[in-house]
Amino acid sequence: MLFKNEAVKELIEKYRVLWALSHAISLLSWDTETYMPKSGIEERSIAVSELVALRHRLLLSEELGKVVDKASAEEALNNYEAGVVRVVKREIKIAKALPERLVKELAKVTEEARVVWREAKEKDNFEMFKPYLERIVKLNQEKAEYLGYDENPYDALLDLYEEGLKTRDVKEIFDYIGPEIKRILNRVLDEGYYPRKHELEDVKYDVKAMEKVNNEVLRVFGYPFDKARLDISAHPFTINMGIFDVRITTRYEGFDFKRSLLSVVHEFGHALYELQVDERLKATPLAGGVSLGIHESQSRFWENIIGRSREFIEAIYPIMSKELSFLKKYSPEDVYRYFNVVTPSFIRTEADEVTYNLHILLRFHIELQLINNELKVSDVPESWNSLMEEYLGIRPKTYREGVLQDIHWSLGDIGYFPTYTLGNIISAQILYHILRDIPDFYEKISNLEFSDIKSYLREKIHKWGSTYQPKELLRKSFNEEINSSHFIKYLENKYLKH
Amino acid sequence: MLFKNEAVKELIEKYRVLWALSHAISLLSWDTETYMPKSGIEERSIAVSELVALRHRLLLSEELGKVVDKASAEEALNNYEAGVVRVVKREIKIAKALPERLVKELAKVTEEARVVWREAKEKDNFEMFKPYLERIVKLNQEKAEYLGYDENPYDALLDLYEEGLKTRDVKEIFDYIGPEIKRILNRVLDEGYYPRKHELEDVKYDVKAMEKVNNEVLRVFGYPFDKARLDISAHPFTINMGIFDVRITTRYEGFDFKRSLLSVVHEFGHALYELQVDERLKATPLAGGVSLGIHESQSRFWENIIGRSREFIEAIYPIMSKELSFLKKYSPEDVYRYFNVVTPSFIRTEADEVTYNLHILLRFHIELQLINNELKVSDVPESWNSLMEEYLGIRPKTYREGVLQDIHWSLGDIGYFPTYTLGNIISAQILYHILRDIPDFYEKISNLEFSDIKSYLREKIHKWGSTYQPKELLRKSFNEEINSSHFIKYLENKYLKH
Repeated sequence: MLFKNEAVKELIEKYRVLWALSHAISLLSWDTETYMPKSGIEERSIAVSELVALRHRLLLSEELGKVVDKASAEEALNNYEAGVVRVVKREIKIAKALPERLVKELAKVTEEARVVWREAKEKDNFEMFKPYLERIVKLNQEKAEYLGYDENPYDALLDLYEEGLKTRDVKEIFDYIGPEIKRILNRVLDEGYYPRKHELEDVKYDVKAMEKVNNEVLRVFGYPFDKARLDISAHPFTINMGIFDVRITTRYEGFDFKRSLLSVVHEFGHALYELQVDERLKATPLAGGVSLGIHESQSRFWENIIGRSREFIEAIYPIMSKELSFLKKYSPEDVYRYFNVVTPSFIRTEADEVTYNLHILLRFHIELQLINNELKVSDVPESWNSLMEEYLGIRPKTYREGVLQDIHWSLGDIGYFPTYTLGNIISAQILYHILRDIPDFYEKISNLEFSDIKSYLREKIHKWGSTYQPKELLRKSFNEEINSSHFIKYLENKYLKH
Repeated sequence: MLFKNEAVKELIEKYRVLWALSHAISLLSWDTETYMPKSGIEERSIAVSELVALRHRLLLSEELGKVVDKASAEEALNNYEAGVVRVVKREIKIAKALPERLVKELAKVTEEARVVWREAKEKDNFEMFKPYLERIVKLNQEKAEYLGYDENPYDALLDLYEEGLKTRDVKEIFDYIGPEIKRILNRVLDEGYYPRKHELEDVKYDVKAMEKVNNEVLRVFGYPFDKARLDISAHPFTINMGIFDVRITTRYEGFDFKRSLLSVVHEFGHALYELQVDERLKATPLAGGVSLGIHESQSRFWENIIGRSREFIEAIYPIMSKELSFLKKYSPEDVYRYFNVVTPSFIRTEADEVTYNLHILLRFHIELQLINNELKVSDVPESWNSLMEEYLGIRPKTYREGVLQDIHWSLGDIGYFPTYTLGNIISAQILYHILRDIPDFYEKISNLEFSDIKSYLREKIHKWGSTYQPKELLRKSFNEEINSSHFIKYLENKYLKH
């Protein structure tokens, strides 16, 4: 029994209805993206906003408050019990900090902004989106003030997505990796071993065949279809209704097959985290991944460290070429290079491992300046384009391939992007440690033997759910702080010592 | 604007979160039967029971109570406004009447009973299920006392499924139709025009081909796939998340193809009711079919009156025989008779139009005696078998094809069965009226022209949602009480005058 303290048990009991609401809201979201008939959207929006508001009210209810206070006053809680108290208190604190007026305004603005952003992007018209971004920045500034912070208002926003992450941490990471990445990138481009483009990017595939490849790869990973699904949606995502019901999606664009496959491998990484949470945490506040950064470390570990490795690509070459007959013209080495094209490009989601974090650095830079009133929204496009030139040596000719490419700001999310880089860094940090604990890691990949790797991730990360804060989890499992040098070493090893 | 009264508008507003919870609970149920990975069931059960209990608490909240009282005290409400007040008051009254202890006990007993029933049926062992049925009868007797009634405790139970339906009404119906059906049945069996068995019942079909037939028939009906779906589940059902998201399911057993097709036509009838509710009732207490009986009248209208008519079968013969090539050996008339086999049989769900209501009469008889302490649970199997012999001239040799065949009692549902007969009767009543208002009704079916028929049903029944009580709706739309003579005339016309 993980939970012995009576006050904590009472808290878990009282919290269960909030868990149930999250369960339902998750299913509603999944359904909206997969099977909902399209005219259902209006009623669906009403239902979701009612349930979100209801959950908010229950979170702030006096009844729950009393139980939390009681559990919080208990001494000698074990780590799981302390985790429960920490997670619920944090949720309440955030909910309490934001006045209803602000929450409603944000909801209203972003509902419109999402629609306007889509149109603005389509029409390549930044002016359309500008007033919305202005409102969103302003409301996020307000949000930061209500949430509170020690050093920088941006801290308050970061913390929403990554508990405990500070602007200082992110700056430190980028100050180090920024120049290092540029150094590595220049050498990679000079050497030309990794191509800047590959003809397989234009080759069309049969969707049914591709579905078979994706399912076969999931089978090889041991994806538990009795607890998990793969479906199709416009944008790939992972969602979990619990520890025993986790669902991923992918899409089939019909060409450049690695995009579909790697999205499945990426989402598998997210899914595995949720699936391997300790079953005894079921339906408690701890039953789920702890943060976006840790989550992304898992998806990137599978997508990049495993999925883009030579060993993996060689090992699944027979699976791929069996279904995708056009591959027979290409050697496993060809396919490896196709999976690892390196090139400065405009679109973040299509960026390779080397350049990806420069896209995030740019966004971090702009967000930080916006929140600190050091940049006006009207100057964002120019700032974006100059930074692209500075970091990647290319300048977008359209807003669509520049400042309007991401959905995040239209959703009101400022402070989210850095968690992507955090994930990349932590994935490399995990690789460093896994290579010491499982020295034949790459041999296992060659043999498509994943059970030890999955067990390792379960023991170090997954099984804890949200028991420990992200930073604490890393210290506890790897006896180390966030350390971005592992990421640079990983890039050097892979891209400079081939 | 349907709603002008401010107090009613406030009530609708306050009720919306209850509507949202129902929306979510419906989706959770749909997902459980269709796409949920099987290990998800335990968390799903926790989530659903938390949300059902939460909805119950909100229904009984002081806040809602005040708003209902206020709206209830208003004078000169229009019919829609009065409907809102009636529906919410009724929901609260039922929720309030039942003490938590009873609700929990019923939930606990039926959760176990469902599992035990399944096993008892499999093992053909009534003794296993007996103690559960005893508890369920006892709890339903208690329930009736708490709910209150004028004449018979069974009234209180009937009313839960069919607002305003009395034991007296059901008795009156059966007193009339029981002997009439037996008279007709005997003649049909004597004449032999409608066969007792048909070789097509044993013919296997290809599931993919059958799926095409079902989808094509739905297309012919004008099933709006932008607001509706067809999926697969163990037992066919209809569920609605709102007026703009209604979903039906069917199953593919692989033989006796009419079962799959007619289940689709049946569920289409249910779906159409929900889809044609006045859009202005969206997300209000009136946004849904008013009762089980009226609902069943719609499904039976499409399944039996239309779906089993010679005109329909002849008209869709080309659709069916295109995909199901084995049909080419059979004439449309052959297929018509296959769709209309008439024979005394053990299983209610497989019964034909003529015998079906005798299965219900039997159940009504037993339920009524049980609730009135005139029959002991241990005597139910004997009573069942004797009644089968009396009504249908056949005696089940197993419990499986007798008293253990239906799931209803294991779910705690006593008083539900009569709504099936009510549906059958009302469907024939609607036919009587539609033939006066649309004299070329059958010609339209021959031409697969359904828009006028759908409009008629919309105007008379669907668009009102739950605005009027079932009996009131019939009076208003057809200027008539429930009248079972139409059903008998329908049977006579179809089965004796061919």
